[in-house]
Amino acid sequence: MENLILLSEQEAAQRIARVRDAMANTAIECVLISTFANIFYLTGRVFRGWIAIPAKGDPTYFVKSPSSGLRDARLVHIRKPEDMAAHISLPRATGMETDSVAYGSVMRLCKAFGIAAPMNASAVMNSARAVKTPAEIDKLRRSGVLQTSVYRQIPQLYQPGMSDLDLQIAIETLSRTHGCLGQFRVGGDSMEIFMGNVLTGKNADHPGPYDFAMGGAGTNPSLPVGADGTIIEHGLPVMVDVNGNFTGYMTDMTRVFACGNVSQEVMRAHDCSIEICHAFQEKAREGVAAADLWQMAADIADRAGLRHLFMGHRQQAGFVGHGVGIEINELPVIAPRSKAILQSGNVVALEPKFVIPDVGAVGIENTYVIGNGSAECLTTAPEEIVSL
Amino acid sequence: MENLILLSEQEAAQRIARVRDAMANTAIECVLISTFANIFYLTGRVFRGWIAIPAKGDPTYFVKSPSSGLRDARLVHIRKPEDMAAHISLPRATGMETDSVAYGSVMRLCKAFGIAAPMNASAVMNSARAVKTPAEIDKLRRSGVLQTSVYRQIPQLYQPGMSDLDLQIAIETLSRTHGCLGQFRVGGDSMEIFMGNVLTGKNADHPGPYDFAMGGAGTNPSLPVGADGTIIEHGLPVMVDVNGNFTGYMTDMTRVFACGNVSQEVMRAHDCSIEICHAFQEKAREGVAAADLWQMAADIADRAGLRHLFMGHRQQAGFVGHGVGIEINELPVIAPRSKAILQSGNVVALEPKFVIPDVGAVGIENTYVIGNGSAECLTTAPEEIVSL
Repeated sequence: MENLILLSEQEAAQRIARVRDAMANTAIECVLISTFANIFYLTGRVFRGWIAIPAKGDPTYFVKSPSSGLRDARLVHIRKPEDMAAHISLPRATGMETDSVAYGSVMRLCKAFGIAAPMNASAVMNSARAVKTPAEIDKLRRSGVLQTSVYRQIPQLYQPGMSDLDLQIAIETLSRTHGCLGQFRVGGDSMEIFMGNVLTGKNADHPGPYDFAMGGAGTNPSLPVGADGTIIEHGLPVMVDVNGNFTGYMTDMTRVFACGNVSQEVMRAHDCSIEICHAFQEKAREGVAAADLWQMAADIADRAGLRHLFMGHRQQAGFVGHGVGIEINELPVIAPRSKAILQSGNVVALEPKFVIPDVGAVGIENTYVIGNGSAECLTTAPEEIVSL
Repeated sequence: MENLILLSEQEAAQRIARVRDAMANTAIECVLISTFANIFYLTGRVFRGWIAIPAKGDPTYFVKSPSSGLRDARLVHIRKPEDMAAHISLPRATGMETDSVAYGSVMRLCKAFGIAAPMNASAVMNSARAVKTPAEIDKLRRSGVLQTSVYRQIPQLYQPGMSDLDLQIAIETLSRTHGCLGQFRVGGDSMEIFMGNVLTGKNADHPGPYDFAMGGAGTNPSLPVGADGTIIEHGLPVMVDVNGNFTGYMTDMTRVFACGNVSQEVMRAHDCSIEICHAFQEKAREGVAAADLWQMAADIADRAGLRHLFMGHRQQAGFVGHGVGIEINELPVIAPRSKAILQSGNVVALEPKFVIPDVGAVGIENTYVIGNGSAECLTTAPEEIVSL
C-alpha cells in the first residue's frame, strides 16, 4: 500500500489553506475537485476521483479505482460518483471546476448531490495555484536547471541540411534523456501541442488556431502548430520553445539559434526582446500591475520601432507573459486588460517575441519567480542568438 | 487564403450524412460541434470555433480567429460564441458535446441561444465516427504501415543495459523520424499519456489510475503510467505499445520483445494472445455482437488456464478491444456488457494481454478493419516474441 498524499503534511496543509483563502473571496462553501492538474496540486499525485474541500473541516478524498493500492484515513474508495453522496453532503454553494469538467460530468454530480447550479471552482483553484509554495518553486527550479542544460546542448545537435522538424526531434530526444516527462499540460480546451515548437523562416508567420504566442503550420492539419519541415537556412533565425516539464512543474524557455550571421534587423529585434526581459526582471515584483508590465514591454518595442512585429505579424498574441506551473497557461496573464497585481510566489513566463516576415521569429522567453526584489530567473541558457 | 475544408466535397458530404444518420436515431434536430477531434472529422483540419449541423439544410462553420486565413462560402468569422446567434438560431432540441465540452462553455452557448438544456451530441458524433469512410481507412492503413515499419526496427534499437525508458525514448525518436505526429488523442478526461508505454518486469503489475489496458508506475507521480526506469532483464518480456498517429488517425499495436529465452509460461500466455487475435480476425465481421467477441476471448484464455492473468492481474481491465481512429478510445468497445453489433467500417484494436506477476506483460494488439469477411489487419509486424 502507498500513501495517498505524497506531499509533506505541512505542504498539503499549506495548499489546502491557499484554496480556502481563495474560497473566502467568494460565496463558495465547498469545492469538489477532479481534474488531474488540481488533484496533483492537492496530493502530489494523479488519481481518478474527487477531492471535497469544505471551507471548514477535513477534506475527503474519493478514489475511483477499488484496487488503487492507496491508503489514507480520509480516503474513500468508490465505484461511481453517486457513491460519494453516501459519505458526504454538499452545500448548495458548492464549486466545481466548471471551466474544465465536461457538462455531463458536472450535471451528474449536481444530480447526485441535489445541487441546482454549481459555482465556479476553476477560478478558485487557478487563484490558489497562481502563488507557488516554496516546495513548488523548488520543483520549477529543478525543471529550469534541466531545461537549461538541454538548451545549452542544442548547438551540438545541429547538422547541416536539417529541417526545423529534424532539429525539434533531436531536442525532444535530448530532453527525454534528461528526464523530460513529455506531457505538456494545458488548462482548458483551447490548445493542443506535442513537445513544443521549433520555428524558422516563413513558417513563423503562419497563423495558428491556438492561443499560443507563435503559430506555425505544423506537418499535419490535425495538429496545425509549429515546425513544418522547412530546411534551416543559413542566416535565418531558428526559434526553439520546447517542453520544460521535468518534475510535474514546467518551466517555459525560448531561445534563438542560427547558422551564420543573421541580419541587423534580426539582431535588433532579438536585442529588444532581451531588453524587455531584463526590464521585466527588474520591475516585476509584488504589488506591480500586470497591465503596466505589458505596457512597459509594448513601449520598449515601440521605441525600437518594432511594435508592428511585436507578438506576431499576421496574427498578434494578446499577451506577452503568462503564469506557469503544473500547466502552461496559469495566472497571472501579462496582458493589456489584465487586472492582476503581481504577488510574491507568482511564476511568470515572459515571452516578448517578434515575427519578421519571410525571415522567422526572434526573441527569448524566461520563467521568473516574482518576489519583493528583482525577479529570479529559472531559465539561464545564454540569451543572445547562439550559433548552430 | 486556404480552403476551410480540406476534404473532398464528396468526403465531407459523406461525413455530414453519417452525423445526420446518427441524429435520426435521436430527438436531436441540430448539433453544435467544437471539439478538435470532431472539427477535424468534419473538415479535415483543426480550428477553434463551432460547426452547426442542422438535420436539414447547410451546415454553418464559425471560426473564432478573425485572421484565420480560411475561406468558404459557409464560413462566418466570429470573435466570441455569442456572435453566432446573430447568424443562426438553434432549435430547443440542440445537441452539444456534453461528454467533452466544459460545463461553463456549454452554459454560455445555451444562454446565447436561449436553450434550456442541451442534448448529448457526443453520443451522436461517437456513433457517426465509429464507422470509418474509405478515405479514413486509407489514413489508418497508412499509419499502420508506418507504425509497422517502426516496430520492425525495434530490435536494432536495443542495447544491453537499457531501461524500459531508454528503449521507449529510442522508439519515440524512431517513430518521430518516421513521421509520427506525437499527439496521442484521447477522448474525454479519463486518461493522460505521452507517447505510449513500454513495460517490463514487476512494473507491468503496477495498478494505474487510467482506463488503459495496462498500468505501470511511470517515472513521476504527475503521470503515473508506463515505463518506470526498470532495467530490461535477460529472459523477461518487454511489452511495447506506442503511439501510431502518423496521419491524424492512429493505429494501435502492441508487440513483445525479449533478450534471451523467456519462460514456458510467458510463451504460453503470449501464444494464447495470438490465438485470440486470430480467432477475432476470423470471427469479427458485420453483424457480430461485441459482447460475444469478448466472451470468445475470455473463453480462450480460460481454456488455456490463464483467465486470472487476462487483461491484468492486480487490476483487470474491463475490455479487450476498442475502436480507434482520430482518438484512441472510440466505439465500439469489446467488453462483456457492450451492446454494440459490429458494422462494416468499424476499426477495432484488439489487445488480449496477460500480466504475469514479477515477470511482465505479454500479448499482442492489432488494429483490424471490420468488413463482411475476415477482418483486415493494419498492424503487420511479426507477432511472436521478437528477440532483442
